[in-house]
Amino acid sequence: MATLTYLTTTHFDFGAIGQLPAELQKAGISKPFIATDQGVRAAGLVDAVTNTFGTGMELSLFDGTPGNPTEEAVMKAFDQYTADGCDGVIALGGGSSMDLGKAVALLAGSGGPLAQYDPLVGGGKLIKAVAPVIAVPTTAGTGSEVSVGFVIILDDGRKMTFASPLFIPKAAICDPELTMGLPAGMTAATGMDAVTHCIEAFLAPTINPPADGVALDGLWRGWRYLPTAVRDGQNREARWQMMMCSTEGALSFIKGLGAVHAMSHAAGRIKRLNLHHGTLNAVFLPAVLRFNEPESGDKYPRLRQAMGLKPDADIADAISEMNATIGLPRGLRAMGIEDADIPELVTYAKQDLSALSNPRRASDDDFEAMINQSL
Amino acid sequence: MATLTYLTTTHFDFGAIGQLPAELQKAGISKPFIATDQGVRAAGLVDAVTNTFGTGMELSLFDGTPGNPTEEAVMKAFDQYTADGCDGVIALGGGSSMDLGKAVALLAGSGGPLAQYDPLVGGGKLIKAVAPVIAVPTTAGTGSEVSVGFVIILDDGRKMTFASPLFIPKAAICDPELTMGLPAGMTAATGMDAVTHCIEAFLAPTINPPADGVALDGLWRGWRYLPTAVRDGQNREARWQMMMCSTEGALSFIKGLGAVHAMSHAAGRIKRLNLHHGTLNAVFLPAVLRFNEPESGDKYPRLRQAMGLKPDADIADAISEMNATIGLPRGLRAMGIEDADIPELVTYAKQDLSALSNPRRASDDDFEAMINQSL
Repeated sequence: MATLTYLTTTHFDFGAIGQLPAELQKAGISKPFIATDQGVRAAGLVDAVTNTFGTGMELSLFDGTPGNPTEEAVMKAFDQYTADGCDGVIALGGGSSMDLGKAVALLAGSGGPLAQYDPLVGGGKLIKAVAPVIAVPTTAGTGSEVSVGFVIILDDGRKMTFASPLFIPKAAICDPELTMGLPAGMTAATGMDAVTHCIEAFLAPTINPPADGVALDGLWRGWRYLPTAVRDGQNREARWQMMMCSTEGALSFIKGLGAVHAMSHAAGRIKRLNLHHGTLNAVFLPAVLRFNEPESGDKYPRLRQAMGLKPDADIADAISEMNATIGLPRGLRAMGIEDADIPELVTYAKQDLSALSNPRRASDDDFEAMINQSL
Repeated sequence: MATLTYLTTTHFDFGAIGQLPAELQKAGISKPFIATDQGVRAAGLVDAVTNTFGTGMELSLFDGTPGNPTEEAVMKAFDQYTADGCDGVIALGGGSSMDLGKAVALLAGSGGPLAQYDPLVGGGKLIKAVAPVIAVPTTAGTGSEVSVGFVIILDDGRKMTFASPLFIPKAAICDPELTMGLPAGMTAATGMDAVTHCIEAFLAPTINPPADGVALDGLWRGWRYLPTAVRDGQNREARWQMMMCSTEGALSFIKGLGAVHAMSHAAGRIKRLNLHHGTLNAVFLPAVLRFNEPESGDKYPRLRQAMGLKPDADIADAISEMNATIGLPRGLRAMGIEDADIPELVTYAKQDLSALSNPRRASDDDFEAMINQSL
């Protein structure tokens, strides 16, 4: 069992789920609210969690998290949290469930509405308290279990990123066993989410060498093991490494992310399509790598090194090849995006928190060009 | 200004010393005890610190830290701390001063004697409290400003390592300006201490990939910039990078260290020689790298990558060449160690806390062989 003590306590290994009761107790949670979704429940993972409890543990189960968490779902969950007298959250699932859980914890500690906490307008100052959260990822993944942020589509359509050290879960329980049943498609999509976190965090211009180191280590692991994890979901080594890549990606994105995430968040708003965040990241990444290169100094050789590429290799090409290898779509059109979607994509990408830490400032035209290159 | 929030708050950049008053206030220190040594005082660095204070700040200055901190010096310092009614420590200097400061803070919070807190006999449980410490390194370095440990030569001759998360300073102020005047010899010795931390932490078998990532990033920086820092002490970039290598080395050695440190601690006990810890590390490192290789799996290629060596390069040779380039001694004999010293070196190295995390278990004969190879 590796216990990593950075900003949070992370129990990481097969069997880590056994640490859950102790962490609940440490966090003072006696009536947990389990924030999850129907897929996780159907996969038997809610049972995996509750099987660790002794008899008599009261809990409130909410499995209504949609594919991309909405303010509506958060409010419904919060109403249940309040009605059931809960005192903390177990956020169990992929990024959507974990983010919904974090949002409920914020409302429980500081009250609504959500939008007031927008970090782009200094909303962090309004946070009074946050109910304790124990995060249990079932994908590899967003790394939300160790991150300062969560993303919710507000009622007014904005996909808002909330960020504060107060949102870091009290503990993260990273048990790769919970990902053994993750289908190949989800393994590929969430795996590329993790890889993208490592790359975008590393390229963000914020000075934080330890985070750079963590990002490159995560990239090294993820790049090596993703094809195996997709091809052979029962490969335990690959599942462990992908979860570590995911956790490291989120530990490192304390530096910020970039244009890939800005565009993925924008595209994630499109209701009719309900696109997966990880798949979008994978598809946008090559164009952004080409766009960023002139302003990324000595970083591209280190990326190549971490990925085991030749010194003259084109990293964007390598990403496209990986996407094809693991069965991700060739581009946005294959995912259902149409020309008519593009103007709004540009608008929302430009306002996204992640755009601020892209190494190269992107204008409306730049975003439009990158979107076109990703079609 | 980079603020790195891992286990501690680290303010890192030229001018970071300006953060000191705010950190003292945050830590609740109104009468600081400055633990330092005569060299730091003579270099004007105590003034650099006190110049940041407003008028009327009372303080207690102890500049009696010896080259390797002893229990005797710690007790003298603690007596002064108590007599002057201090409520916290500014640990200002190299590893010796910072370690003495941490020891005083432990005594202030939990009482003496020191030996009861030996982690090898579960002494950590006896720690009740630790007075707040703000650490300000003036070398690059031991990284003690962010580390869980400190090392003191007890009255009975044992060089004891104390380790607990409670010993991590409340804040670290890493201002490379304070190292601009560090002479070439000290730059070389403390620089190799930092490099050794990165290497030994990376090789330690504990599972902690984020720490691995931080170690490799630190190694990448230190290996690139050490010759420049030694040759041209006024090169600000090199000074910044070496201090970052030092901080990262200590962030990563939460994993543990290894046989190099075990032997360096043993040799550091020899009173007549008063050998520098960093120089000893540099001299022992090649032999330990050779010894560890059979049990270090896929790690050596990653070390070579971080150091920019060819895939077939001999890392131990590269270390020896670096030592020669930066003017460190060829071996232990040149430092004054004699055959008669060796049996005690073996005995003390074997009992050292660091020996526990060497990737390959070393017997008495193994230690003797490595010492002989380092002569």
